[in-house]
Amino acid sequence: MSNTVDLLIFARWIIPIEPAATVLENHALAVRDGRIIALLPSTEARAQYTATREFLLDHHVLLPGLVNAHTHAAMNLMRGIADDLPLMRWLQEAIWPVEGQHVSAEFVRDGTLLAIAEMLRGGITTFNDMYFHPEAAAEAADMLGMRALLGLVVIDAPTPYASDADDYLAKGLAVRDRWRSHPRIGFALAPHAPYTVSDRSFERIASFAGELDLPVHIHLHESADEIRGSLAEHQLRPISRLAHLGLLGENLLGIHAVHLDDSDIDLLARHRCAIAHCPTSNMKLASGIAPIARAASAGITVALGTDGAASNNRLDILQEMRHAALLAKVSTGDASALPAHQVLRMATLNGACALGLDERIGSLAVGKQADLCAIDLSSIATQPCFDPASHVVYAAGREHVSHVWIDGETRVDQGIALLQISDRELLRLAALWQTKLVN
Amino acid sequence: MSNTVDLLIFARWIIPIEPAATVLENHALAVRDGRIIALLPSTEARAQYTATREFLLDHHVLLPGLVNAHTHAAMNLMRGIADDLPLMRWLQEAIWPVEGQHVSAEFVRDGTLLAIAEMLRGGITTFNDMYFHPEAAAEAADMLGMRALLGLVVIDAPTPYASDADDYLAKGLAVRDRWRSHPRIGFALAPHAPYTVSDRSFERIASFAGELDLPVHIHLHESADEIRGSLAEHQLRPISRLAHLGLLGENLLGIHAVHLDDSDIDLLARHRCAIAHCPTSNMKLASGIAPIARAASAGITVALGTDGAASNNRLDILQEMRHAALLAKVSTGDASALPAHQVLRMATLNGACALGLDERIGSLAVGKQADLCAIDLSSIATQPCFDPASHVVYAAGREHVSHVWIDGETRVDQGIALLQISDRELLRLAALWQTKLVN
Repeated sequence: MSNTVDLLIFARWIIPIEPAATVLENHALAVRDGRIIALLPSTEARAQYTATREFLLDHHVLLPGLVNAHTHAAMNLMRGIADDLPLMRWLQEAIWPVEGQHVSAEFVRDGTLLAIAEMLRGGITTFNDMYFHPEAAAEAADMLGMRALLGLVVIDAPTPYASDADDYLAKGLAVRDRWRSHPRIGFALAPHAPYTVSDRSFERIASFAGELDLPVHIHLHESADEIRGSLAEHQLRPISRLAHLGLLGENLLGIHAVHLDDSDIDLLARHRCAIAHCPTSNMKLASGIAPIARAASAGITVALGTDGAASNNRLDILQEMRHAALLAKVSTGDASALPAHQVLRMATLNGACALGLDERIGSLAVGKQADLCAIDLSSIATQPCFDPASHVVYAAGREHVSHVWIDGETRVDQGIALLQISDRELLRLAALWQTKLVN
Repeated sequence: MSNTVDLLIFARWIIPIEPAATVLENHALAVRDGRIIALLPSTEARAQYTATREFLLDHHVLLPGLVNAHTHAAMNLMRGIADDLPLMRWLQEAIWPVEGQHVSAEFVRDGTLLAIAEMLRGGITTFNDMYFHPEAAAEAADMLGMRALLGLVVIDAPTPYASDADDYLAKGLAVRDRWRSHPRIGFALAPHAPYTVSDRSFERIASFAGELDLPVHIHLHESADEIRGSLAEHQLRPISRLAHLGLLGENLLGIHAVHLDDSDIDLLARHRCAIAHCPTSNMKLASGIAPIARAASAGITVALGTDGAASNNRLDILQEMRHAALLAKVSTGDASALPAHQVLRMATLNGACALGLDERIGSLAVGKQADLCAIDLSSIATQPCFDPASHVVYAAGREHVSHVWIDGETRVDQGIALLQISDRELLRLAALWQTKLVN
């Protein structure tokens, strides 16, 4: 007696993330109406199900789609525009002037389309964005069938996008109202950073977050300067200041969290906050090395983010997994710190938890949405293969991502992205903006 | 009046490495008899030369072939066999037992074939090896048309390959005698490490090195334990011990060089020694962060190495460039440390210098061998492109390497390796050894 499903994927290996550190061999995943309905041995799947679409992935490992817990997608248009500069000079001399002159809804839409195309090819199925003109980002994500959480930026300074904190909030919340019923797009409040947002604005944000049940995402303890500045101005470390302002809670995602002392870790852990660890950006901007092994041991949920393409310069969560593992080992002097399965969890289920999406995505559990990626381990660069989890973290590259599904819909098939916009058109957009930005 | 050459490559950008930090636009490279005979604007090249083979690389950056200054190529057969372990446990519990049971000439030949196939696809045209059975590695490099410097290992302990230091030396030097006229294959003396080689053996090595004009390559100051052990046993730090034994000189390549105090840097600089920096391996084994920016400032030639596939787990010099730059920035707190052009030089000309091959390779200078690689920057992941040097280091992956030439012969063409052995056969070898190693 055979049961018809929409999608049946047979894989050499499946890493479901839950139960922890599990690798299933020769298993299959059945999907109906965009959701996972079964995960079982391939032989049993053959006996029990028939499917409209079948994929035989004989040399592949199937994983939950990767979650990019922090990026500024539109900044793909500024990839490599300024490197080898420290954070504040990079912002003040390179990034902010270009943004001030060029950022518009069109810029954000086009940059976000490029970023999503890059991320999908690399196995990323959900991204958490923070940028101006979130409606333009929503349009891009909707068009390409991507899952996204869009941060509604708040800064106490005028930009071409908004005049003051109230204006940012009003604009952001209006976008959220228009898009709130979208099945794959959600919103968070995104005060930019402790050094660009006033106490009054934080209080308004805390009140909206409570009222509307919204996550709050903020760049936090990224540099030593940020902490010195906060101590001078507020006589508090930024995390303590947020605690006083009532911002810490399960809905708070601290981005970067590089400079954490024991009191910071304790506060984040007690309030069940999450961290978006961005190891490449932290290295490239010389921000410092986040104490991720300690934070994770304290029970804090640590997810992984790429940051924007102007400070990384790749939106590549496979790279962030490798960098998180490598950096944790060398900074603690313990080669067993952040082993492969732990960083795989950071890149999937922890990302989902950090974004409040863990009931829907992040692991291959029955009932969750079928956001998936497959990595082909049959190439010269990934053979022999003694342990597929090790290979995903330490050997494979995003070029080995062969298939990607979101809500059970195929977005990448044998390395080819199936998008509503052609590569040719995407490259034309990149060229167009490059010309504008350098003139 | 047109001049016929063997090979003419027109590229959107050429980075010749010398002069420093130069990017030439719309230039061409002419090659005859395996050597570079001209580097000139494309329009002039069109007027002056015709070629048997022409390549039009309109979206590419052309570079000298990358130099992998340290690897254990045969260990590709052990890729990912044990991760997340510290150096000595990794060696004693995982690597040495497998090596003791399985390493043979066949193992080395097959593993080295796989490693070369991986390296060539990633733009590496020269590798510096250190492993048992160097003759088998020479056969593999010869078969695939790769340039190689092969370390003749010396250890004061018996292995299936040799019984004692004299036996290692005798076997190694016999191989060198048989292969010494090979145009692309050279040899170095390779005492394994200060903690595995006796003073007597070092003295013999120093004397052979002088007599036969051979380089000396050694794992050096890789871990803090190595230095503690040396202080306890010899009352000297390893570099000082080598100085006393007459080993330091222009022909000495110190591999890893993670733990360097000012006296170590001073000794290496005064004796004009070179360093093979292996950032990924140093992170993965939690060995530490090498003070590369300081060493380079002191005038030491710093090259880049991948180490073996069991401790990295990729033979990918593009990755090592990125890791060298990122690690230097975060460890010094200076985002301008090791900028893109400096790491490009480390991966090319410095590698050639460290191996004593800088008169023949390492930069795109007239008279040098045409060892080249081209990287296609037209993909979604590398657009827009404001600065090709930045993109090579921070954005591109080895999957964007489109063409590779050694001595002017095409080894990779549009991403396809042109080798004397098929991918199918290489994968068969990998599968065969995987089965043996786990049984």
